[in-house]
Amino acid sequence: MAPTIYLAGPDVFLATARGVGKRKQELCTAFGFEGLFPFEADAGAAADAKTIFLKNRALMDRADVGVFNLTPFRGPSADAGTVFELGYMAAQGKLVFGYAGTRTPYLDRVEQSQGKLTEREGCRVDRDGYAVEDFGLGDNLMIVRAIEEAGGTLSLVDEDTLAAFRAFEACLASVQDAFRAGRLGKP
Amino acid sequence: MAPTIYLAGPDVFLATARGVGKRKQELCTAFGFEGLFPFEADAGAAADAKTIFLKNRALMDRADVGVFNLTPFRGPSADAGTVFELGYMAAQGKLVFGYAGTRTPYLDRVEQSQGKLTEREGCRVDRDGYAVEDFGLGDNLMIVRAIEEAGGTLSLVDEDTLAAFRAFEACLASVQDAFRAGRLGKP
Repeated sequence: MAPTIYLAGPDVFLATARGVGKRKQELCTAFGFEGLFPFEADAGAAADAKTIFLKNRALMDRADVGVFNLTPFRGPSADAGTVFELGYMAAQGKLVFGYAGTRTPYLDRVEQSQGKLTEREGCRVDRDGYAVEDFGLGDNLMIVRAIEEAGGTLSLVDEDTLAAFRAFEACLASVQDAFRAGRLGKP
Repeated sequence: MAPTIYLAGPDVFLATARGVGKRKQELCTAFGFEGLFPFEADAGAAADAKTIFLKNRALMDRADVGVFNLTPFRGPSADAGTVFELGYMAAQGKLVFGYAGTRTPYLDRVEQSQGKLTEREGCRVDRDGYAVEDFGLGDNLMIVRAIEEAGGTLSLVDEDTLAAFRAFEACLASVQDAFRAGRLGKP
């Protein structure tokens, strides 16, 4: 049976969510996996929050691997629901992989969205005086390090679309490499 | 021995992070708990991302309960690192609680930061055409439902500060209630 991949991401908020999900599942199949797309896309206004949560949690519990679309969403960071799910699957000891449609580091994205950063005691700070992590990473260190500690990779491609298909394909190739090399998680 | 609480939140990015952490730990003690503050605050520029990740993960693994500061950070949602940690501890089956310094629902916060929402097929959408969850919740449904499914609560107080001390105290009172009622998680 093909290993299952939970396809986390803000794709569910696109007008074209169903089509995007279908295409990502087809790509999973082409790489030898079964893609599980989150429930929201098919839910519409009919489903309540509790139902969506429980269905998505069940999909995560069932999946062998998590692939997370970390393209910035409504701010310089990844979508909050996606990041929650990354933490959830990382704690399960599963292989987790990330991808995003931008190669711009987090610190630069904060600067782009808020204007020039300043300095305070050797630390970069934003317009509100909050420190900005300066590790050259693509997002908050907990996100990036969790992926690396789990044996996954982060695929970044400048493509400026939320669905980030090119980065997604690069990510699936990395998942395939991990399976071929026997680098499975410890579910 | 006092139950331990992991004090997740963007407090670590404040100029006053150490003082805020110390005060929150004192409040934990007053409520009968031991508060564990994330490592970043003391790290400064010296620690690398891997060290911070591993230290914070070890604190989460050690904690009995997670208390999450979900005050919006650099956008309409909670801080990404905090949300990652919420997912991590929720997957461990631990009791998780949230608090925030605002009672404004997520949908209204998106509207405040982006301008008026429009409609598409019965769904509210933002300026980029992305659907906005319309469940009247304080943040992404995965965040809010995870707390409720785990038996925790979400304490919201309009106080307009990132540290959100009043909401934090209300949250600690809820944690105390949960312990007194025997509603422990299943670590």
